Amino acid sequence: MSDPLTAQSLSDHLRRGDLMAQACPSREVLKHVTSKWGVLVLMALRLETMRYSALRRRVGGVSERMLAQTLQNLEEDGFVHRVAFDVVPPHVEYSLTELGQEAAEKVAGLADWIEVSMPRIAKVWSDRGKAK
Amino acid sequence: MSDPLTAQSLSDHLRRGDLMAQACPSREVLKHVTSKWGVLVLMALRLETMRYSALRRRVGGVSERMLAQTLQNLEEDGFVHRVAFDVVPPHVEYSLTELGQEAAEKVAGLADWIEVSMPRIAKVWSDRGKAK
Repeated sequence: MSDPLTAQSLSDHLRRGDLMAQACPSREVLKHVTSKWGVLVLMALRLETMRYSALRRRVGGVSERMLAQTLQNLEEDGFVHRVAFDVVPPHVEYSLTELGQEAAEKVAGLADWIEVSMPRIAKVWSDRGKAK
Repeated sequence: MSDPLTAQSLSDHLRRGDLMAQACPSREVLKHVTSKWGVLVLMALRLETMRYSALRRRVGGVSERMLAQTLQNLEEDGFVHRVAFDVVPPHVEYSLTELGQEAAEKVAGLADWIEVSMPRIAKVWSDRGKAK
């Protein structure tokens, strides 16, 4: 227990996740932040605090159920902060925590790249004769 | 047609995807590169050209079927290059194209962040009393 090398190894092991390992809980986080709706919610909240209804309008095509589930996952991982105001009708606001802001920046890096690169990808599709 | 402002707007419109729009084909690309196996395959191939069997060992827990489907999606989007050598037994190698390398860098930015941030996320889980 007091062997500094062993302690070092243990600490190394706990210091970060390993997505290549089937049992690593980091895979659950990956699933939440890279789900279609997870990506789009993070991108929307990256720019501003939003009410549920505004979020739903911003993220085209998301259902009530999927948006609620996505927000709950992101809240449980510590990425989204939810504030419910005690008024009628209910008023709930969502924003990113510091952790969520960091995640959203990485996600936005990928999302922006996809948006900007669509013409090149569409050209690949077209060259392969795949109708899109 | 010859109005330069209109031409500019049309070109703007076609120049990039819009992930927030339900019908935009960029959502299909997002799905491919952010699927669990898509992320892990891009990360594995980012470092080296790999044979199918080596890829399967590297990406913990992936089934034959899911790996084949993931590689096919990434190949169709122009991210993965597949070379089949005419030998017995069959020898197939996968590598990233230039487009795939760019995508993989963005994906790795997110994946690395998740791995490094796992202790903070695990603390959130633990503080919320969720057994992980």
